[in-house]
Amino acid sequence: MQVKHVAPSTIRRLSLYLHFLEMCAQAGTATVSSRALAEAGGATPAQVRKDLSFFGSFGRRGVGYPVPQLAEHLREILGLSRSYRVVLVGAGRLGAALAHFEGFRDRGFEIVAVYDADPAKVGAALDGLAVRDEGSLEADLAAQPADIGVIGVPCAAAQAVADRLVKAGVKALLNFAPVHLAVPEGVSVKHVNLALELDGLAFALRNGDR
Amino acid sequence: MQVKHVAPSTIRRLSLYLHFLEMCAQAGTATVSSRALAEAGGATPAQVRKDLSFFGSFGRRGVGYPVPQLAEHLREILGLSRSYRVVLVGAGRLGAALAHFEGFRDRGFEIVAVYDADPAKVGAALDGLAVRDEGSLEADLAAQPADIGVIGVPCAAAQAVADRLVKAGVKALLNFAPVHLAVPEGVSVKHVNLALELDGLAFALRNGDR
Repeated sequence: MQVKHVAPSTIRRLSLYLHFLEMCAQAGTATVSSRALAEAGGATPAQVRKDLSFFGSFGRRGVGYPVPQLAEHLREILGLSRSYRVVLVGAGRLGAALAHFEGFRDRGFEIVAVYDADPAKVGAALDGLAVRDEGSLEADLAAQPADIGVIGVPCAAAQAVADRLVKAGVKALLNFAPVHLAVPEGVSVKHVNLALELDGLAFALRNGDR
Repeated sequence: MQVKHVAPSTIRRLSLYLHFLEMCAQAGTATVSSRALAEAGGATPAQVRKDLSFFGSFGRRGVGYPVPQLAEHLREILGLSRSYRVVLVGAGRLGAALAHFEGFRDRGFEIVAVYDADPAKVGAALDGLAVRDEGSLEADLAAQPADIGVIGVPCAAAQAVADRLVKAGVKALLNFAPVHLAVPEGVSVKHVNLALELDGLAFALRNGDR
């Protein structure tokens, strides 16, 4: 099933439902109500039913949704039934924290290579991988394509690294640098940035705004 | 100057402009063009001028914006001219990474206490702070209020921790758990979550969507 033009807020809710279902599965819960899913996703029960029925799902009124089946269905919708090859550019402190982030591998995102431009870092071991010279990025990706590029380099280098990854065929970027990345049509970028979120909280606190 | 009802996308751009200006300041650059700011913020030069003029700012056409002054102005707008007291709940691996995140302190966010519910972790040192028993959260916050609560506990515990922080007067939450948090009017929540962003990239890759 190919699904297009789904709002980012919907995808975010599906992801929150899935995380909640995985927690339920670990606890051995067999079924969940749309009310419980709604709480996890910050939605109403009606919104949950709408979100799930849009993707052809199946809960039964008064019975609820079967946990393992709905989780599997959501993994399929989100594209998590397969694994993804991830390259990480930037082996600094952030890179090291990421390489150790267990959630990466558990969810099928396999870091296959780590790069750094600093000769002092090249060759060092990072979670079982030897840090490679950033100069070999293109040749490596030509030999073994990757699905996702993680940008863990400083701001000033982020756009250049993004350009190189995109040119080498990487279609999805996860950017940790607090800078906007310009990418061509057909390439996805997601940001994870503590500093930007803190700025947002400071603004809200200063202005008594939400 | 109190500013209300500013779109989150505007605040995000102001934050990106500021990060770019700080990089320029470090490099010793005296002035920047609206074009350079636009690139950093993922905007057009016209949008930059609009964003900045809305807050009473001052670039001169053909001369550009003076770097240190504009940075200071943006810090003032964003509420970064003061420091914030931050409490971190959850001293697991994520908590440890956060406590060491230098960007926190550099930008005026001071982690004043770290809590955990696990007796095995209480008393351990985390970046110069002894981990405290989560049970003392309310008493501590009554004695010394905090501005921001960082939620680094597992999903299943996140809402309860949020409720306790809010009840104790904390008005801004930074949530690392992949679960929606319900909070009353007047409390801000920002999310930093690698797993949710990865799910979004997987969806995009699966559907050839952006």
